[in-house]
Amino acid sequence: MELVIRCKAAVAWEFNQPLVIEEVEVAPPQEKEIRIKIVATGVCQSDLYFLSKCSNQTAFPVVFGHEAAGVVESIGPGVTEFQPGDTVIPLFMPQCRECRLCKSPKTNLCVNGCPLVSLSFPDLTGRSRISCRGRKLLQFLGTSSFSEFTVVKEMSVAKIDPAAPLDRVCLIGCAICTGYGAAVNTAKVEAGSSCAVFGLGAVGLAAVMGCKAAGASRIIAIDINPDKFEKAKVLGATDVVNPNDHSRPIQQLLQEMTGGGVDFSFECIGNVEVMRSALESCAPGWGVSVIAGWTDMENFSAPPIHLMTGRKWTGTLFGGEKWISASEPAMVKAYLDRKLMVDEFITHNLRLEQINEAVELMKNSRIRAVLSVSPQ
Amino acid sequence: MELVIRCKAAVAWEFNQPLVIEEVEVAPPQEKEIRIKIVATGVCQSDLYFLSKCSNQTAFPVVFGHEAAGVVESIGPGVTEFQPGDTVIPLFMPQCRECRLCKSPKTNLCVNGCPLVSLSFPDLTGRSRISCRGRKLLQFLGTSSFSEFTVVKEMSVAKIDPAAPLDRVCLIGCAICTGYGAAVNTAKVEAGSSCAVFGLGAVGLAAVMGCKAAGASRIIAIDINPDKFEKAKVLGATDVVNPNDHSRPIQQLLQEMTGGGVDFSFECIGNVEVMRSALESCAPGWGVSVIAGWTDMENFSAPPIHLMTGRKWTGTLFGGEKWISASEPAMVKAYLDRKLMVDEFITHNLRLEQINEAVELMKNSRIRAVLSVSPQ
Repeated sequence: MELVIRCKAAVAWEFNQPLVIEEVEVAPPQEKEIRIKIVATGVCQSDLYFLSKCSNQTAFPVVFGHEAAGVVESIGPGVTEFQPGDTVIPLFMPQCRECRLCKSPKTNLCVNGCPLVSLSFPDLTGRSRISCRGRKLLQFLGTSSFSEFTVVKEMSVAKIDPAAPLDRVCLIGCAICTGYGAAVNTAKVEAGSSCAVFGLGAVGLAAVMGCKAAGASRIIAIDINPDKFEKAKVLGATDVVNPNDHSRPIQQLLQEMTGGGVDFSFECIGNVEVMRSALESCAPGWGVSVIAGWTDMENFSAPPIHLMTGRKWTGTLFGGEKWISASEPAMVKAYLDRKLMVDEFITHNLRLEQINEAVELMKNSRIRAVLSVSPQ
Repeated sequence: MELVIRCKAAVAWEFNQPLVIEEVEVAPPQEKEIRIKIVATGVCQSDLYFLSKCSNQTAFPVVFGHEAAGVVESIGPGVTEFQPGDTVIPLFMPQCRECRLCKSPKTNLCVNGCPLVSLSFPDLTGRSRISCRGRKLLQFLGTSSFSEFTVVKEMSVAKIDPAAPLDRVCLIGCAICTGYGAAVNTAKVEAGSSCAVFGLGAVGLAAVMGCKAAGASRIIAIDINPDKFEKAKVLGATDVVNPNDHSRPIQQLLQEMTGGGVDFSFECIGNVEVMRSALESCAPGWGVSVIAGWTDMENFSAPPIHLMTGRKWTGTLFGGEKWISASEPAMVKAYLDRKLMVDEFITHNLRLEQINEAVELMKNSRIRAVLSVSPQ
């Protein structure tokens, strides 16, 4: 018989307030649910966004964290594909494999797994197995990895190679798949093409890596913080540009650098002005611009002629990977085979108790802080 | 030796003023130019737009008209593919076949043929062979079919079957190719798919026809003027919707009608609010929205999530046909073979002298007025 686990979690009681390390109660997994011991978690800009920027400030109290790796502690009734002890990555955007979206080869969205389809980003369905002092805590994106233990749906779990270092591969659970997949799956970057990546956080750097993997011959990495450039070059950038170093607009500069515009561009910040610059940096006729950075605070805008002249504007969630529970283990394997860089993204290692320090680091545009949560 | 031709033309001397029938002088064709006797011309909303709405009000005096058919009167030096007497359609967006855009299979834009690439819609290069009382008149889009004679570049001419009735097939020179191609070439509408067409002018009706030709199983035609619905049904619409008949937003209605959104939508008006509705009517995951209606007065806008959930936003000029000089004759042949409807688009037949009457009709949302210009 499964028991309630009492453990530590970082609780966001209120919008835009420091997180509080609390003792929480994590209920046993119910039908087709899995309880996971979180070993390590990244602190993603999306956690920060919903903590302190989002237009929906009512989804509190909540346990954030969605980019993690851990070990199955127990399984609920009806779980067939996992056993206690399995090494896993929780999935913030799972696929049920049964809905009309899952049945289309054209999308990785899922009616049942993806709260984003209904445009409500946090999982507000009310399903939560975490509580604190008698109060239910929302589970951000159905995951909540800023907790020593959490309970997720079976479909929200990917089994990975137990040899993988969890304090590294946790980043495959969000940033790396999102940016890499934006290039490889969503944009379908072509060999020999030119690419521009706006914003060199973890998602942007992963997009650079994806462009390189796809065989792009020109990869222009753009950030107003030149500290990011060295890492961008390591990951595959052929050119680095700081827009502040130039008096003319970045889109004009990129048009000049590439003789008419890049084939593919990526917005990896969540800034609607940069989204427009990324679109305008694309070549008329065929340029594809992919929005990978999240904001719900403002709308993007552009003149119709930018699209009428054949540019395509689209976006990505979780890198457009069709079957994430299969792609995550594949990405982990690629890392173990030294075909995918992950270590390079980690700039800070801290413990769960230092979460507010990690939040501050991420607010100051560090690439990625990884928290050690539970001992493996 | 070629001589100057004195003939009638409708001259737009000033922004937003009635056109004036004047005697103009049409110079002989120069190197690689062709002088055409215009037999018939459509009056397109783009003519009206640049006459009385456009943000650039300085491109005057000008001879409008770009959707026409005629007969080659004379050829300039170096013209190899045309002879006097050839039946032709002038092309407002030709292809040089030599530039980097022409050499890409991905676009029908042309650096040398398409002033739109540089975002200046009227041909302001200064090339004009038409003058009036000593004043050079600009040639709108390099064509100027509101004149009994005009001179265009050789690359801006498509030779068509001499059996074609020119007062019908002139519409293939813009509206029909633009709308039909938006569906077939730009959106690549798939068999069995669902489509929504916003705005049932000539371009929108042609988009309906294109969706049907592509095998769409559901074609929802939308207009606030129910007079257009009968024709939309003739051209292939399975459903017709007047947004004013419903209290909820049209995008919500379409989502309901189609169980989650259409596969393809088309904006054929040039209204940025409708552009957003057309995007929002698309299915998350794969919906493609094509902007076919022109405006440079405002920017469109939308929340990033609409694209991040996998919708694609793009646009079309001249229906995305790669080689327009080849596709125009093919469209004319399809019409002669009764595989393409054209007659159905023509609601009014007038003479060049009645151009201001035609302009008023088109301002009042009639589908298409065709002007008889010169006797064939």
